[in-house]
Amino acid sequence: MDLTDQRPLRVAVLGCGSVGSQVVRLLDEQSRDLAARVGAPVELVGVAVRRLDAPREVEVPAGLLTTDAEGLVARDDVDLVVEVIGGIEPARGLILSALEHGASVVTANKALLAEDGPTLFEAAAKAGRDLYYEAAVAGAIPILRPLRESLAGDTVTRVLGIVNGTTNFILDKMDSSGAGFTEALEEAQQLGYAEADPTADVEGFDAAAKAAILASLAFHTRVTAADVHREGITEVTAADVQSARDMDAVVKLLAICELKDGAVAVRVHPAMIPRSHPLASVREAYNAVFVESVSAGQLMFYGPGAGGAPTASAVLGDLVTVARNALAGKTGAGESAYADRVVLPMGETVTRYHVAIDVDDKAGVLAQVALAFSEHGVSIQTVHQEGRDDDAQLVVVSHAATDAQLAATVEHLRELDIVREVTSVMRVEGGDE
Amino acid sequence: MDLTDQRPLRVAVLGCGSVGSQVVRLLDEQSRDLAARVGAPVELVGVAVRRLDAPREVEVPAGLLTTDAEGLVARDDVDLVVEVIGGIEPARGLILSALEHGASVVTANKALLAEDGPTLFEAAAKAGRDLYYEAAVAGAIPILRPLRESLAGDTVTRVLGIVNGTTNFILDKMDSSGAGFTEALEEAQQLGYAEADPTADVEGFDAAAKAAILASLAFHTRVTAADVHREGITEVTAADVQSARDMDAVVKLLAICELKDGAVAVRVHPAMIPRSHPLASVREAYNAVFVESVSAGQLMFYGPGAGGAPTASAVLGDLVTVARNALAGKTGAGESAYADRVVLPMGETVTRYHVAIDVDDKAGVLAQVALAFSEHGVSIQTVHQEGRDDDAQLVVVSHAATDAQLAATVEHLRELDIVREVTSVMRVEGGDE
Repeated sequence: MDLTDQRPLRVAVLGCGSVGSQVVRLLDEQSRDLAARVGAPVELVGVAVRRLDAPREVEVPAGLLTTDAEGLVARDDVDLVVEVIGGIEPARGLILSALEHGASVVTANKALLAEDGPTLFEAAAKAGRDLYYEAAVAGAIPILRPLRESLAGDTVTRVLGIVNGTTNFILDKMDSSGAGFTEALEEAQQLGYAEADPTADVEGFDAAAKAAILASLAFHTRVTAADVHREGITEVTAADVQSARDMDAVVKLLAICELKDGAVAVRVHPAMIPRSHPLASVREAYNAVFVESVSAGQLMFYGPGAGGAPTASAVLGDLVTVARNALAGKTGAGESAYADRVVLPMGETVTRYHVAIDVDDKAGVLAQVALAFSEHGVSIQTVHQEGRDDDAQLVVVSHAATDAQLAATVEHLRELDIVREVTSVMRVEGGDE
Repeated sequence: MDLTDQRPLRVAVLGCGSVGSQVVRLLDEQSRDLAARVGAPVELVGVAVRRLDAPREVEVPAGLLTTDAEGLVARDDVDLVVEVIGGIEPARGLILSALEHGASVVTANKALLAEDGPTLFEAAAKAGRDLYYEAAVAGAIPILRPLRESLAGDTVTRVLGIVNGTTNFILDKMDSSGAGFTEALEEAQQLGYAEADPTADVEGFDAAAKAAILASLAFHTRVTAADVHREGITEVTAADVQSARDMDAVVKLLAICELKDGAVAVRVHPAMIPRSHPLASVREAYNAVFVESVSAGQLMFYGPGAGGAPTASAVLGDLVTVARNALAGKTGAGESAYADRVVLPMGETVTRYHVAIDVDDKAGVLAQVALAFSEHGVSIQTVHQEGRDDDAQLVVVSHAATDAQLAATVEHLRELDIVREVTSVMRVEGGDE
């Protein structure tokens, strides 16, 4: 097939930062392969930026740069728009405008999808265009397409994801060196793994947006960031990490999406997982998503979760699919939200707790602690007691119970006279219940 | 949308063994979800079997069973054919007939695809129908779709796969218990991980078929089973496994697909990989595929590589996609073989060797051994020498060289007077060159 005779697919890129510049570079460098894989040449017709003279990682032909993003997406001759600006506005308005003007859209914008995905999906459906967003979760790791398509004949019951590289780097440092949170954060900042203002990462906002997207796809329902219970890692101490080590576990910030009796629970928080769990070996800034389904069993997807080139790889993968669709005058599968499930509040979510307590070293202490657990209907899986100079430490791991029961148990423990301090409370995931 | 008004998609299943019976069960149990995800009801209209009265894991309504597979695929009202018979014939004839009669096909048949894939792809293209085969490689693990679609905007440079569960189980046992091959094979057979005749698994035929399929997709070229250099694990000794342990490595049967200067090399053989490599932690009968690409970097896909339900999950994922396509009157992306690459013979493939040698314990031995390597242009990365009672053991790990250079070096070593025995030769993968 002589592709030079084909009408080219015309692409506009919004944003030319670390991801956008790699997309622009690859569109140029890979143009021959892209044309062969799409079935027509792919032509870059414009790159919208805030400032024409900003320094960039890639050389963009001057004629292609524009500060008029709205004008670019409204052009009649644009078939595909790649949105890599990020944030809510102007990204949302531009995507909606692009769809209205007949372009399909590829975006990496997790925050926007988690906040207002349904608006975008409905606009895409109404326009008869594609909206693809593989790059929004876990960078280069193909996880959305497997959930949307490969597992479409299966029932996903749980997704456990390490979907934020910054926090995984910090927790991995704390585990390997015994460092505290602040020290590990500083190292991450020095190495470029954490931003000067690390809030979005360390407070779990980034992971929560991704959890909402994962849960929506896994369970065929609408989940937004507001539905996600979120706790960051700023309270994780070196003692917590050591306590995990003592039980052959490791602390990870997990995005957890679960299906329970037809309802979904979606949460982001630090948790201890056994070192034998496949997620435990995800080191440094890598990401991984662990999926449990009824028929397929346990699957894991692992790779770099961020970075310009990896994220651009995911964007271009979507771009090839969307371009093929556009060429054939069709679209891929749209939003699948038919199951319309209830989202459980955190209190009703079932989990397990690891609790470390400093107690008086005297007879009857264990009985009082055990009673506190049983009064709240929580059964204990293991207790480890260690005498020290003038006190003792109890480490209790519970069986599964609702978060409300477990939280009430911890409050109860704090009020006991024989309890000097509750030194560590952390959820436990990835093991037997 | 009221799906009951939609004309149903009609499915015929060929074969009702461990995979087929699970497909039949899930089509029934998941019918509501499948209809919602496809956009129309999915109706099972026939199941072709060899014997009507054979015992089965699932109850098939008697009216659906038939021994006339050819008649079933030729029916006018069949939209989709699922082929899970396996083997070359009659599977090939039935798939070709199904396509000719206007049905799209989902198959798990790795042997057929690796031997004669192009014939099937051409028939599908000519008929304007889909041919999907995610279940043919690594069971439930979504790997073909990520290669075909998610990475379509990237350049895959290497695929390292543990794609045969039986051999991974055996090698894992040998590693964890020190058992020899025969003993580990017997345990695998007792536990149902190996068949009574284990040839296809332990001699690497199964993995070679999957390697051909992976290489074709990864590199956009045609690779058949005949192009794959194949060595099984029957010669792997407890001493080899111990030798790997000594260098903090583990022996795995790897399917290796590489792109080098535009040509491809595809091979299956046991190899030592460092324990720090993500593939090293793939235990028991699990599978995993490690993918290296220019932009995405390193990705890994992990999960159960076999079994009725996991394989059926992959089949049904394809079925949902193919059914959606059929409903929309379109097809997905077909074969992508535009790159048309040369397949290198094994001798030109670049790899590294681990060689253990019993030598006379006297001065000048190391010099003679080093000379043998350098005469064949192979440079040495590490040498470990250990004196024993009346001889010494040398363990040499080479830098990267062609397999022909390395094989010639080993032949040369065997001819040296000071060499008593070459006790272990194994390739080394997954590390720095």
